[in-house]
Amino acid sequence: MSEYAMTSKIIDKAIPRIDALEKVTGHAVYTSDIDLPNMLYGKILRSPYPHARIKKIRTERAERLPGVKAVVIGREFPYLFGETLKDKPALAIDKVRYVGEPVAAVAAVDERVAEEALSLIEVEYEPLPYVLDPIEAMNRDAPILHEGLAEYKRSPIVKVFPGTNICNYVVYEKGDIEKGFAESDYIFEDTFKAPAIAHAAIEPYVTIAQVNFDGRITLWTTNDSPYRLQVGLAESLNIDPSNIHVIVPYMGGSFGGKGGVKLEAIAIALARKVVGYPVKIELTREEVFTSTCTSHSSIVTVKTGVKKDGTIVARYVKAIYDAGAYAEKGPTVLIQGCRGAAGPYRIPHVKIEGYLSYTNKIPGDAYRGYGFFQTQFAVESQMDDIARKLGLDPLEFRLKNLIKEGDINPLGQEVVSCGLEKCLLKVAESIGWGRKEGKYVGKGIAIGFKNTKTPSSSAVIVRLNWDASLEVYTSLVEEGQGSKHILAKIAANELGIPLNKVKVITSDTDITPWDTSTTSSRTVFHQGNALIDACRKVIEQIKDRLAEKFNIQRSEIMFKDGEFIIGKDRISLHRDINRVLRTGEQIVGHGFYEPKISAKLWEHHGIFWMYVAHGVEVEVDPETGIVVVKKAVIAQDVGKAMDKATLELQLIGGTIQGIGNTLYEELKFDKYGKIENPNFRDYHIPTALDISEVIPIIVEQPHPEGPYGAKGVGEGPLVTIHAAIANAIYDAIGVRFKEFPITPEKIALTIKNMRIS
Amino acid sequence: MSEYAMTSKIIDKAIPRIDALEKVTGHAVYTSDIDLPNMLYGKILRSPYPHARIKKIRTERAERLPGVKAVVIGREFPYLFGETLKDKPALAIDKVRYVGEPVAAVAAVDERVAEEALSLIEVEYEPLPYVLDPIEAMNRDAPILHEGLAEYKRSPIVKVFPGTNICNYVVYEKGDIEKGFAESDYIFEDTFKAPAIAHAAIEPYVTIAQVNFDGRITLWTTNDSPYRLQVGLAESLNIDPSNIHVIVPYMGGSFGGKGGVKLEAIAIALARKVVGYPVKIELTREEVFTSTCTSHSSIVTVKTGVKKDGTIVARYVKAIYDAGAYAEKGPTVLIQGCRGAAGPYRIPHVKIEGYLSYTNKIPGDAYRGYGFFQTQFAVESQMDDIARKLGLDPLEFRLKNLIKEGDINPLGQEVVSCGLEKCLLKVAESIGWGRKEGKYVGKGIAIGFKNTKTPSSSAVIVRLNWDASLEVYTSLVEEGQGSKHILAKIAANELGIPLNKVKVITSDTDITPWDTSTTSSRTVFHQGNALIDACRKVIEQIKDRLAEKFNIQRSEIMFKDGEFIIGKDRISLHRDINRVLRTGEQIVGHGFYEPKISAKLWEHHGIFWMYVAHGVEVEVDPETGIVVVKKAVIAQDVGKAMDKATLELQLIGGTIQGIGNTLYEELKFDKYGKIENPNFRDYHIPTALDISEVIPIIVEQPHPEGPYGAKGVGEGPLVTIHAAIANAIYDAIGVRFKEFPITPEKIALTIKNMRIS
Repeated sequence: MSEYAMTSKIIDKAIPRIDALEKVTGHAVYTSDIDLPNMLYGKILRSPYPHARIKKIRTERAERLPGVKAVVIGREFPYLFGETLKDKPALAIDKVRYVGEPVAAVAAVDERVAEEALSLIEVEYEPLPYVLDPIEAMNRDAPILHEGLAEYKRSPIVKVFPGTNICNYVVYEKGDIEKGFAESDYIFEDTFKAPAIAHAAIEPYVTIAQVNFDGRITLWTTNDSPYRLQVGLAESLNIDPSNIHVIVPYMGGSFGGKGGVKLEAIAIALARKVVGYPVKIELTREEVFTSTCTSHSSIVTVKTGVKKDGTIVARYVKAIYDAGAYAEKGPTVLIQGCRGAAGPYRIPHVKIEGYLSYTNKIPGDAYRGYGFFQTQFAVESQMDDIARKLGLDPLEFRLKNLIKEGDINPLGQEVVSCGLEKCLLKVAESIGWGRKEGKYVGKGIAIGFKNTKTPSSSAVIVRLNWDASLEVYTSLVEEGQGSKHILAKIAANELGIPLNKVKVITSDTDITPWDTSTTSSRTVFHQGNALIDACRKVIEQIKDRLAEKFNIQRSEIMFKDGEFIIGKDRISLHRDINRVLRTGEQIVGHGFYEPKISAKLWEHHGIFWMYVAHGVEVEVDPETGIVVVKKAVIAQDVGKAMDKATLELQLIGGTIQGIGNTLYEELKFDKYGKIENPNFRDYHIPTALDISEVIPIIVEQPHPEGPYGAKGVGEGPLVTIHAAIANAIYDAIGVRFKEFPITPEKIALTIKNMRIS
Repeated sequence: MSEYAMTSKIIDKAIPRIDALEKVTGHAVYTSDIDLPNMLYGKILRSPYPHARIKKIRTERAERLPGVKAVVIGREFPYLFGETLKDKPALAIDKVRYVGEPVAAVAAVDERVAEEALSLIEVEYEPLPYVLDPIEAMNRDAPILHEGLAEYKRSPIVKVFPGTNICNYVVYEKGDIEKGFAESDYIFEDTFKAPAIAHAAIEPYVTIAQVNFDGRITLWTTNDSPYRLQVGLAESLNIDPSNIHVIVPYMGGSFGGKGGVKLEAIAIALARKVVGYPVKIELTREEVFTSTCTSHSSIVTVKTGVKKDGTIVARYVKAIYDAGAYAEKGPTVLIQGCRGAAGPYRIPHVKIEGYLSYTNKIPGDAYRGYGFFQTQFAVESQMDDIARKLGLDPLEFRLKNLIKEGDINPLGQEVVSCGLEKCLLKVAESIGWGRKEGKYVGKGIAIGFKNTKTPSSSAVIVRLNWDASLEVYTSLVEEGQGSKHILAKIAANELGIPLNKVKVITSDTDITPWDTSTTSSRTVFHQGNALIDACRKVIEQIKDRLAEKFNIQRSEIMFKDGEFIIGKDRISLHRDINRVLRTGEQIVGHGFYEPKISAKLWEHHGIFWMYVAHGVEVEVDPETGIVVVKKAVIAQDVGKAMDKATLELQLIGGTIQGIGNTLYEELKFDKYGKIENPNFRDYHIPTALDISEVIPIIVEQPHPEGPYGAKGVGEGPLVTIHAAIANAIYDAIGVRFKEFPITPEKIALTIKNMRIS
């Protein structure tokens, strides 16, 4: 490491993002912008029933409509998709399982014709009993969504109970939970609920599929993980991964929703019927809301045993996550959510149980924080209650129990790179913790953590050209988070070249190398490491050439701050590369990174954990119930700030998203499980008018394996804000809300009832 | 080499070309097929004068036309382009130099509007004296085309004479030419002419240029050399090469015409005025004929001294090539043509002089064979005459003097890998040399050679995926010649994987590595070597992994026929790669090749020479003058046949092209230098109806440095056919034509005059 020590001059510099100009001018290309010659347009017919058998589908009239090039139904494309549990057809085959499920699809010369063709498809349904509540769905007499559950292909980490709707069960234990409760002075038990939330990315789902004459599939698509999509499709379609070419242009937000196999499967089903022609499907906003995925609604019960002095002795958590009609990433969202369910505390006795249950609704799926915000909301709301009931200051209570460097976390992993205490203290200071600001004004704090999926791997290829320009080839998906910019900075920093000499080429599986996914806050950590490896391989090759040129030993050459040092001579890579490379000569480095952690430990471990604290000050209008977040502070331990502006925007953005979750957002289902508010008029996300001050605080506790010490960032800001707001509302009006969104109606009604009683 | 010895099973197999299916079904993408969002369309205003000063250009009316987005004139884009002599503006600046020269360009929302806008541009010209004949142009009192010749940037290999129209002069000498003539028994001197020929590629010139906000230029274009274009533009525009991104889709033929900087400069000039918007220019067929380039018309005088016994003692050649109005590749075409001007013979005393002269006509440029066919036509026509005058059989006369392995060629290079004699003997046998087939039926033979540009370099990157599929990244341009297929075969052969596992990704400077050019018959030789290097680097990396996995020495592992051999174990790369690589793991190899030949020798040498012989049998109708080529045989020494079918098509195609050159093709200029036959009705290229039997014979004299012994192929078939036909016509009717095309009119008139006289 020492030989390569860089001053990280570029890393610490405020430089406009490399994608800024093309984005603000509207010239960045998104999937929706892509027009291909002879392109056809796809539309999807959807189920009006929450659960029904498909008796017959007649497509002849649709097929005869001029301009229609293909109609496809589920029986013609009998493949099942899913990441760890393959349960989802592209188009319903024997039955439909939620209102909005795709049943048939049409490709036509334009969208209008395709839309018209949908109305000509006749489907005969036989309605079936259905279930919308995940607890009811676990009853023995509940309607069963997946009779074939036992036969579905699944990963060994998924435990299903055939004959029920339970499509994953997980249990984590540490210590002896019964002993722990027996040793406790007090035991608290509360149940908390979170609703289904829409990802609400501004860009809808768009896929273009083209099937070549040799069967090879090309996809241009809104998906956060080109290679995982490639591998997932290959598994389901039973073809070689290399027969699927995935291209992901810029993406307008994902927040977890644009992973797995979504529109891609339907687009392929159509494209296979019109070989050679690209088929584009772009969902309407209503379709995005009603037929893609949501966060997992949840019921989380937390039972905590504490000593009188405030020492936490035992914690049992039971988490029930509503899968909706198909598993999607639910099984691993449950696993991850449960891994965080005890909160970031030193607790000797822990037991966590999680259930994932099918219901006849739109599927739940990954959502920023991957199952953590549901459990952190529960734990951190209860922590406040416990403190108050014990007569302790919630801040002191947390400080007393939180994990620090070298501790063992609730799952048994040693804590490494943990700035949690610092985060909490900074937040408390920033919001003036303990100072009462007025009647109906309250303050709340909450802390949390989130690990990254482990293990996972990334490769990056770099190409240094003879004019000292550099291409970085990476399969990261730039969806607004800024990783593309940060990789460019790392490359510039490693080689000592100006940032404007670096081009980052992203996400085309024919060109850019393997990367597991742009999820789990993993990109800068994993790809950053792979990129540094790639850059150093370039440097080593240049050293070989210099050694040959000057007839010296390789070991006589040092590289530092962009310069090769040979005795008293200094050769700048940037300025003098043409002394080494002739016109046309390029040096290629292929870097790879995978955490150096033993497979045995993966189950309970993450190669890094993000630590975060939120503090908020709210004012509640007791008449209208309207909550104003007057100030929100977030402090997050990021290991090393790789780009301060980008980082702060992540912290602010996540906080605002969480404010929306907590106060406004909820997908409302009618009695058939149909979403009643599928648009931005009826589904309210925060606008600039809703938001007051949000203060980001960066804490840097370097990670020993991170690039320059950096850890991931993206999901951290969304795991603690919900509880912080609920705690502040409690502080303001003395009411504990155990369910969000905490809407004005609920608050006003509660206050009214309190006054009456 | 031995360790890697492959059985070349795939190389010798007849397998359909990997690009066959997409081409025959019309799904291969050419530049013309590309539509981009917000694309504008460009049209070009052209000079009606052969030589005139531009006094004023008024563009206001054009600019005001609704739908017009940009109008550009030469003064706004004052850069000069050219490969070794930068003399050509994108749009004429101070004066125009030929009829058809671009003067202004318009970008508009569609082609119709752009066309209309052209009619609104007013240009005031002051006509100047002009010159069309290259010999007249070299006179002291000739109108001077380029007053600034001395100031143009040029390569040191170009010798210009400021104040004249001579834009290159070259002289090669070996031995003592005066002594040689003095020692000769007979001296023959003849002058031969070749016309300007159209490249006649079926695809016209198309360029799309887009300038990004940071000034970076992206080009999708019909150009044979993406990197040379990048470097050439960068030199002229004075920007970094990496700020120019060149993409070349499939190309529908080039034959040398689609190199250098053509439409690209004009498209950039427009695109810089509409930053962010792609501008597409697609030439009409008439524009292709009148304003791009042609072959060099030439006047070649050959003076040969021989002994009575037929030993050639001395040869002096003076070649005058007509540059047209701009140099384009003329300076190096002259150099190459002169390098071959003495023919493939052992001659002790040689002197060659070449002149390149500007005239007020469309520029001459590279044309398949790069200046060789003009000199080979001259030498091989005269060889026949000399033989007959000495009473020798033309075959015997050639066999007596031709170069063989180990000889010294006319330029002083030792002859390596030369199957010339075998080619000649096979051709003679195939056409039944010496057997008279009837009155007005004649036979002709000719031999020739062509070197490849030396030095030049190629890189290839390969990526082996965990499913044993392979990407080959190469900057070759697939213009119909089949190199893409041959590279795929080489990769499959090296790694022992099926051909359908290999994808070849071509010509995108952001992705594919450096390659000098897809010209000079160099691709299979140079890129083939680079590809083999890249594949072997992959194998070495797999060996590293195997050595680590099995805890053995790397040297204990052999790779042969697609299998790693470890003791008695055999691990197939194709079937067992997943024992080495996990999901997502890829291995990248970067290969490079540059001839191992000393710089001192470059001037007179080629790393390889192609050797070729043609034999034809013609029948002449003495009344109409119509010549029917009853049979044409070509034998070419290719080193090693890399794909028999592709190779035979190259030999047949080049022969047919040469038949067209010799019998039909000629661009006709009116007295203003305007082309009178700018379309396929008036400019006749051979059709299927014109062609009888063409027999390709492959001779394999392995080249020590070639991939599996292979040499290049593409230009060989066009250097000897012209003389073979002329010799056959002489054999049929006893008339020596020293100028082609040898049209029915010329023959009929000549026969008529003979009868009269």
